[in-house]
Amino acid sequence: MLLGSVEAGGTKFVCAVGNEDYRILDITNFPTTTPEETLKKTVDYFKQFKDLQAISVSSFGPIELRQNSPKFGYITDTPKVGWSNTDFVGRLKQDFDLPIHWTTDVNGSAYGEYIMATLFNEKINSLVYYTIGTGVGAGAIVNGNFIGDIGHPEMGHVRLKRHPDDLDFKGICPYHGDCLEGLVSGPTFKARLGKSGKDVPLTDHVWDIMAFYVAQAALQVTLMLRPAKIVFGGGVVSEAFLKKVRSQFTELMNDYVDVGDIDKYIVMPLVKNNGSATVGNFALALKEFNK
Amino acid sequence: MLLGSVEAGGTKFVCAVGNEDYRILDITNFPTTTPEETLKKTVDYFKQFKDLQAISVSSFGPIELRQNSPKFGYITDTPKVGWSNTDFVGRLKQDFDLPIHWTTDVNGSAYGEYIMATLFNEKINSLVYYTIGTGVGAGAIVNGNFIGDIGHPEMGHVRLKRHPDDLDFKGICPYHGDCLEGLVSGPTFKARLGKSGKDVPLTDHVWDIMAFYVAQAALQVTLMLRPAKIVFGGGVVSEAFLKKVRSQFTELMNDYVDVGDIDKYIVMPLVKNNGSATVGNFALALKEFNK
Repeated sequence: MLLGSVEAGGTKFVCAVGNEDYRILDITNFPTTTPEETLKKTVDYFKQFKDLQAISVSSFGPIELRQNSPKFGYITDTPKVGWSNTDFVGRLKQDFDLPIHWTTDVNGSAYGEYIMATLFNEKINSLVYYTIGTGVGAGAIVNGNFIGDIGHPEMGHVRLKRHPDDLDFKGICPYHGDCLEGLVSGPTFKARLGKSGKDVPLTDHVWDIMAFYVAQAALQVTLMLRPAKIVFGGGVVSEAFLKKVRSQFTELMNDYVDVGDIDKYIVMPLVKNNGSATVGNFALALKEFNK
Repeated sequence: MLLGSVEAGGTKFVCAVGNEDYRILDITNFPTTTPEETLKKTVDYFKQFKDLQAISVSSFGPIELRQNSPKFGYITDTPKVGWSNTDFVGRLKQDFDLPIHWTTDVNGSAYGEYIMATLFNEKINSLVYYTIGTGVGAGAIVNGNFIGDIGHPEMGHVRLKRHPDDLDFKGICPYHGDCLEGLVSGPTFKARLGKSGKDVPLTDHVWDIMAFYVAQAALQVTLMLRPAKIVFGGGVVSEAFLKKVRSQFTELMNDYVDVGDIDKYIVMPLVKNNGSATVGNFALALKEFNK
């Protein structure tokens, strides 16, 4: 059985074909240019696979997820130049008479991690996936369903208690200044220290400051959703960084609610190399096919 | 059809009997003393009603909500003296062979507001209810189900960006200091100003400071859950205060996600006099009966 995955990012698209065991049979990627050109490349890629049964798209946003909206399947009012009001699912439907699943990039990753956890025999019914990279976002699942009602979550834009050693930094979010994304996304290294994150050793105090903020995000989502597991992916995250996050989380929580073993609660992705969304897409395409 | 409601608060219990139209036919209340005495009074109250079909309890916490836990139906590790490890549902089951619904006080209120909104013909599938009184807590519903997986939410204990004019106030939460509850619960008036909240006019700047924090809570829950409506109840809340909250929310959000008409999004309860939980209990008792 052949299933299609589109991970539609603001910088590049990753298209893949896999099977119902979530194995990648073929994969490609290309830069995100205009909607016309990029979606044409997407369609042309999948046309090579005659027996494709369903496609799942995990897209950058904001997107319209409400099935009853006339704009369902669209990228809506995005800052990405040229992409506002793009009928993504409609374009795929022009060439493919197939079930198409449509969700956010982070929901796709969350679903991939949720499915993988099940395959690894973890007994969980819920999971939150944060990505901390160029931007910050999160997707959440409870009992196989995505969290969100009148729209998808935008968990990257919450406000946080500021770290006492970081009060002079205004944050870089063009909308909110010092929201989570404005304080911990990849480009904050340049803004704070004038160099790229990969050149900042883990001994630099900035990592403690960032861990304080990321721990608060984990605390917020714990107190609001009570998920079984929180996964952190994206270029900024490493096991060493998460160690700091766990420590600050424990201090902030002060034994108020029990999350079980903290080392199993706040974790790196099970799927390596940012591949969570591709696994998630295969599983979501299969789910859409079986509807 | 007779349905029973128990609103189990840390200070008093409100017991009521109503019908499937959510009308109160009889209501009483008594102070929360020892578990033995208070639960005996609860049982004795309901014994007067021979035709009772189901009971719903909305309780102070923390409580065990997981059906598969041996402690389901218990108040667990509560700071309320004498009440830790109390088998609430078990005590009721000793005297009543009836379906018993069990949830948190704020979930009960959230459900009451959700049901009332439906009766008022609002087209919503989700709702969050915050209470701001002696403590701060919240319950959330999506498609008729409560949010929470490994436990119930504890939304009162999130951290927030501190208001620049409030940096010296350490907050009063014994666990977290300056979490939401530590910054905006009723007793903060005494701690900040040395007098009770009812003696602090709305022109006092402390209300702006508190609105800044409550607006952040609304912002967090908006960005995490994307609910259709946020209701604020409890002794600290007034329409005039919510006006300040809406204004700060709008500023903090900066048009990032659309919540519709803000005056219909951040609102006071539809059920007056803190009666939301009683309505919620009638509806939940009916739901439990129909299971």
